[in-house]
Amino acid sequence: MPGGTESSGIAVIGSGVAGLHLALLLQRHGIPVTIYSEQTAAQLASGRMLNTVAHHNTTVRREQELGVDHWELAEYGYFCHHHYIGGPQPLSFPGAFGAPSRAIDYRVYLPRLLADFQERGGDFRAGQQVSPEEIVRLSEQHALVVVATGKGGVSAMFPVIPGKSPYSRPQRRLSAGLYHGIARSEPKGVTMSVAPPHGELLEIPTFSSEGHVTVLLFENVPGGDTEVLADAKYDEDPAAFERLVLEKVRVHHPSVFERIDTARFGLTRPEDLLQGAVTPVLREDYTVLPNGRPVIALGDAHSVVDPVVGQGANSASYSAWELGTVIAEDPNFDERFCQKVAARRANRVQAISDWTNLMIALPPAPHLLQLLGAMSQDPAVADEFTDNFNYPERQWDILATPQRTAAFLAHHGM
Amino acid sequence: MPGGTESSGIAVIGSGVAGLHLALLLQRHGIPVTIYSEQTAAQLASGRMLNTVAHHNTTVRREQELGVDHWELAEYGYFCHHHYIGGPQPLSFPGAFGAPSRAIDYRVYLPRLLADFQERGGDFRAGQQVSPEEIVRLSEQHALVVVATGKGGVSAMFPVIPGKSPYSRPQRRLSAGLYHGIARSEPKGVTMSVAPPHGELLEIPTFSSEGHVTVLLFENVPGGDTEVLADAKYDEDPAAFERLVLEKVRVHHPSVFERIDTARFGLTRPEDLLQGAVTPVLREDYTVLPNGRPVIALGDAHSVVDPVVGQGANSASYSAWELGTVIAEDPNFDERFCQKVAARRANRVQAISDWTNLMIALPPAPHLLQLLGAMSQDPAVADEFTDNFNYPERQWDILATPQRTAAFLAHHGM
Repeated sequence: MPGGTESSGIAVIGSGVAGLHLALLLQRHGIPVTIYSEQTAAQLASGRMLNTVAHHNTTVRREQELGVDHWELAEYGYFCHHHYIGGPQPLSFPGAFGAPSRAIDYRVYLPRLLADFQERGGDFRAGQQVSPEEIVRLSEQHALVVVATGKGGVSAMFPVIPGKSPYSRPQRRLSAGLYHGIARSEPKGVTMSVAPPHGELLEIPTFSSEGHVTVLLFENVPGGDTEVLADAKYDEDPAAFERLVLEKVRVHHPSVFERIDTARFGLTRPEDLLQGAVTPVLREDYTVLPNGRPVIALGDAHSVVDPVVGQGANSASYSAWELGTVIAEDPNFDERFCQKVAARRANRVQAISDWTNLMIALPPAPHLLQLLGAMSQDPAVADEFTDNFNYPERQWDILATPQRTAAFLAHHGM
Repeated sequence: MPGGTESSGIAVIGSGVAGLHLALLLQRHGIPVTIYSEQTAAQLASGRMLNTVAHHNTTVRREQELGVDHWELAEYGYFCHHHYIGGPQPLSFPGAFGAPSRAIDYRVYLPRLLADFQERGGDFRAGQQVSPEEIVRLSEQHALVVVATGKGGVSAMFPVIPGKSPYSRPQRRLSAGLYHGIARSEPKGVTMSVAPPHGELLEIPTFSSEGHVTVLLFENVPGGDTEVLADAKYDEDPAAFERLVLEKVRVHHPSVFERIDTARFGLTRPEDLLQGAVTPVLREDYTVLPNGRPVIALGDAHSVVDPVVGQGANSASYSAWELGTVIAEDPNFDERFCQKVAARRANRVQAISDWTNLMIALPPAPHLLQLLGAMSQDPAVADEFTDNFNYPERQWDILATPQRTAAFLAHHGM
């Protein structure tokens, strides 16, 4: 075709977990795929912390299927949640996973998976900020374009679903950092510490370029006592920043504070801090370009969730897997294809969005408090809630309405 | 509760294949269920022929799971389709199933499954014509009401989905009867004989109270040469009726006619004839009553299809199985439950409706004719089309658009 380029293979825009898991799966199916990324591998490996993520075991199993399970669970995994709910009568109780979760800093994780993709012959194009106009051009060169990044304004191609996007602004202001000087909980787990009405602290055992370190992710309610952590400038006075963090942990999160060696405590590196906020949103699964080509939304382009229950990466990975499976089964990229993709991933992706939105609602829903109270009394309830981090649609079966929570607790004899 | 009745168990309105397969599955799960039926078991076993149905192997496998597989496939099953497409250059070719289908007259089938249900302790209430008002009353006595009958006007509770219901009137006028005097095709199979532009004849080896007999199902295009078969009165002159049938088969369906022993040919019994017509329709999966209780549509209350590709009973059985599975997994009968049911069965039920509607479209879609032509040339294509009677969503993957048919044929090197 003179002057043109033949349409071939799948274009994946974005080199986050969504784009990489999709590309690796397509590669396994022998389907040609090109990743277009704003950043080079070296840029992915350096720079400011990208996010704080937990990969639950259902995601780890996908990593095993993809042959990218590089971090042994015995050393890098964690096994439970330690809950602490502050107040006049604090509640403290664990919840166990059926199988371990794992947290790896994405500046370690993403370059490693990208290397896997390239070593297996994958086509990676870096240094490309992809605009909506560029997506039209790519749609004419590829059999299908998948937008797997929330960056560059391309998410706006996919209309927001109002009924599934209840918030117009962030419900928490975030301060996430990697820290030294925090002893592991026992068994090794994530601590979810709630300080009503100020917000939550997630303490996550994580592996980074600095080795085994600890994420402190402060989820600060606007106007609350810890909100300052989202504004304080580390670079202006590192020691003052760390003192402020320590003080807030001491006052609001005693079950974490008791494991801190204050003499050793500190941010691992200046770039290991991320302050910001997220407005949760669920967007349509796809759009059809004026040239008739469909474009699929994946990961942050499709669903953005607050990190409070660590579901974003798992949603993206699940969604990538379902999309890749439909591509392999039915490579006819028309409206029926798009509707199949939507139907295949809706249950879990929507449950993750709905559940996470409930977890950050203010004031907290009475039936959520009822469930947390029941978890403190019955380890079986706490374990089921915890393992459901792998199966968010089951969590939402329990939490979608007060009647469902009551039925679940009645089933547990409560 | 004085004056009231405690809400308990599932109410199934209707004792057709949808209602019975659902009730038998719930029984297996230990979930209390009551069938409300207009007819007694004796009435189901007698009277006019109810319909002509084929149970494809995916449905047979559900019957095996339910422990109601009473008719050995070696004796009662059939193994292929024999296609005949009339015209100046007739086409004749077989298509094989991966595993056998089976056709049993429902006046034999339904009473036998009802007996299974009752022998296992099932609660069956006959003689009840259930009106919409009665459904409101039942909704207050049961945890959930399922409408599994198209009779009595209760379907109208469920709004028609216009985009999925393209016809406002029947596309074929039907004449279905059980006949003696037709030798089996070899291998034993269903003959699908097309006589453009007059319509189709389905010849189905069937077991009835009269033993092994043959269904002739004439699908008559209004205004065509065979339409008279939908109007002719058997009772006024049985011999004349049978001569008329013979003559139409001779003229339009030679591959069937050549197996008829005209001396023995005849309707098995006067009541073994059904003349009528079907307007295909797809309705919403559920409705919510003014009292807040949801009611689920199943079988004919949900989807009515023309019998031309023998999918109605299979759609109803599949839908019953998915519904029963969701009831067992998540017995919280709210809007989330209803949406789960809809999502779980949508792919196959909608594909059955869409595919069947394409098969009766006039004039025939060019890509359907293209596929039939390819089937006559390549046994692999014919076998795939035939086995897809078990997997209608795969059939619709091939037939949803001309582009899909072209891609499918290209995949087969055509």
